[in-house]
Amino acid sequence: MAQQHLDPTDPTAGAVTGDALAGYLRAQATEFLRALRLHRETGAGAAAGGSEESVDAARALRRSARRISASLHTFRPLLDTDWSEAIRPELAWVSGTLAMEHAYAARLERLLQALHRLSGATALPAQAGVVDIADATGTAGRIPAPQKEAPPAGPATHPAATPDRGNLTVGAAKSGALLDRQLTLARTRAHSTALQALGSSRFHAVADNIAVLASEVPLTPAAATADLRPLAAAAEERLTDAVAGLPLVTAGHPYNAAALIHGLSPDPAPHPQDAPWHQVRLLLRLHRYAREVLHGDSDPVDVRLLAAGQSLNRHRDASEAAAAAAQAARTPRIAPATAYALGVLHADQRHEVEAARFAFQQSWQRQTVGTP
Amino acid sequence: MAQQHLDPTDPTAGAVTGDALAGYLRAQATEFLRALRLHRETGAGAAAGGSEESVDAARALRRSARRISASLHTFRPLLDTDWSEAIRPELAWVSGTLAMEHAYAARLERLLQALHRLSGATALPAQAGVVDIADATGTAGRIPAPQKEAPPAGPATHPAATPDRGNLTVGAAKSGALLDRQLTLARTRAHSTALQALGSSRFHAVADNIAVLASEVPLTPAAATADLRPLAAAAEERLTDAVAGLPLVTAGHPYNAAALIHGLSPDPAPHPQDAPWHQVRLLLRLHRYAREVLHGDSDPVDVRLLAAGQSLNRHRDASEAAAAAAQAARTPRIAPATAYALGVLHADQRHEVEAARFAFQQSWQRQTVGTP
Repeated sequence: MAQQHLDPTDPTAGAVTGDALAGYLRAQATEFLRALRLHRETGAGAAAGGSEESVDAARALRRSARRISASLHTFRPLLDTDWSEAIRPELAWVSGTLAMEHAYAARLERLLQALHRLSGATALPAQAGVVDIADATGTAGRIPAPQKEAPPAGPATHPAATPDRGNLTVGAAKSGALLDRQLTLARTRAHSTALQALGSSRFHAVADNIAVLASEVPLTPAAATADLRPLAAAAEERLTDAVAGLPLVTAGHPYNAAALIHGLSPDPAPHPQDAPWHQVRLLLRLHRYAREVLHGDSDPVDVRLLAAGQSLNRHRDASEAAAAAAQAARTPRIAPATAYALGVLHADQRHEVEAARFAFQQSWQRQTVGTP
Repeated sequence: MAQQHLDPTDPTAGAVTGDALAGYLRAQATEFLRALRLHRETGAGAAAGGSEESVDAARALRRSARRISASLHTFRPLLDTDWSEAIRPELAWVSGTLAMEHAYAARLERLLQALHRLSGATALPAQAGVVDIADATGTAGRIPAPQKEAPPAGPATHPAATPDRGNLTVGAAKSGALLDRQLTLARTRAHSTALQALGSSRFHAVADNIAVLASEVPLTPAAATADLRPLAAAAEERLTDAVAGLPLVTAGHPYNAAALIHGLSPDPAPHPQDAPWHQVRLLLRLHRYAREVLHGDSDPVDVRLLAAGQSLNRHRDASEAAAAAAQAARTPRIAPATAYALGVLHADQRHEVEAARFAFQQSWQRQTVGTP
């Protein structure tokens, strides 16, 4: 990584070559193996959630798997084609499988926080307590109260003006319990799937491959002296092109109400209008990782790029949370009050989607205006 | 109205006196009587909705009643106290009673438009047609399809990507039918109430009073030479003070999510957080009418004041539409899909409330920065 301190935007500076790529890949492979060892030591076999250490280890595993996979993609011409085309889908499988458990947990937390906020800042656990007593509709069986302590409420301008005893607040509590049941089940299954994956021969083959990568990167003969910068620039260009295809004029106009179109569409899957934004999120990540390869540890944190990425993460999370609320509303035999609360929740999360697009537009505009 | 062309902001100009107030009140009273005659001639006794002319006449009646009442309030010290305190509540009763029918019609139209937009730009009547066939829940009787042709959809980025056959879209159609039934009933009742009011001896007493006002305004002895401007300035100050009490910093921050707090509150009545905004809406109107008295027909239209007023009207309309959706969701024995759609609709309208506050903040800021 001798060349990592070069500034790739400086045309007079020397090229960053395949050696830097090899160094980056070796470092990420080493990190992958370290995280894997840590994950095994910290008792990943425990119940869903696991220890804090095993959660951290799983995150580190995903983190390095994503970076290796992204680098193989961006700098494809410099690497042995057969090898890199064989390992990339396997790495995607590893990071995808490991991500699910965390995603369900985060989605539940996001939705319970939103329910809490929408209920006007009265503690959710207290509301959950009234479920069985106040259940006058009699359509559902005994619903377990949410087991998570709800996090503190969002901005509350009118703290708890009315006591939360009405029908619709029962709906909020019951929808929270329903989401808790469904997403906790999904999370438990994702945990089992991840454990099975980590114990599979398929995963062991991936780990073996990464172990080889940690010492020997299969560069093409020409790669050692090839300039990485055109390939990194191409990754940035793919990002820029995809952003140019986004409806940023609409997104930059607050309260455009675009995200809730299809809010009553019969399909509870994520909205088709979200797809280009998800795509930009992935391309932004590829661009960021390509910068890491070029700049190494000396990469100055681009706070605007970071903000844009965070907006797109928020966009993805809100989009999936909205879909989960819509999906829960299709549960047979739920009470109307529960369905109503899920409708409010769905719309709330679709507005979060819209807010995230606005935030992205703002940070992206600053970026292109003030680009160094 | 000889002094109506004076600029009241010019301290060297002569005062606008009680004569201008008398002229304004006479003109508004004449307008009231003209509208009343027109209303009687155009068959106000017809079914709810009435002819276009009778709707216009009712609007003109309300318009002059509001202006007379507002002027009596703002310029109270210049008018015979007993007389003005007796007639003001009567004028409020007239304009309030006449406003209800229009309010219910507008509310229904707003909600059906929103449902249409949320359903992704497929025509609402077509959806309504599938209600009876696709009703698999069997909880409701035969629901009449909405009788209004849904107006054109709002901005649609993805026109009808999926056929609207799913459960939730049935919910959208059924919630539209439910709102149509409830608000049409309310409107019909409001129409009858208005007709009864217009035929009552109480109303005839008001009309007699207005007829006297058209020729003889009961000014106090000192009023003819009194300066109107301090009283108009006091009205403006009450407005400015009330605006200063609004959470404009929050409102100016897009997607602050403040309007949906209490979105799942058990009380379907308009949110308590809306009250200060409604109050500003009334004070803005008083200020506008006081300007009319001072400037007469030469009053230059203040587009910023107009924009601020329109934002507050939109705020009021969305607030009441959201409450109507929440109220409809409390109808016994509705299907979960209907309740879900009403929840989405409620949240959508609460975001309209938030959007209206943002728009008000924007126009008000421009106003105070660029004030003449």
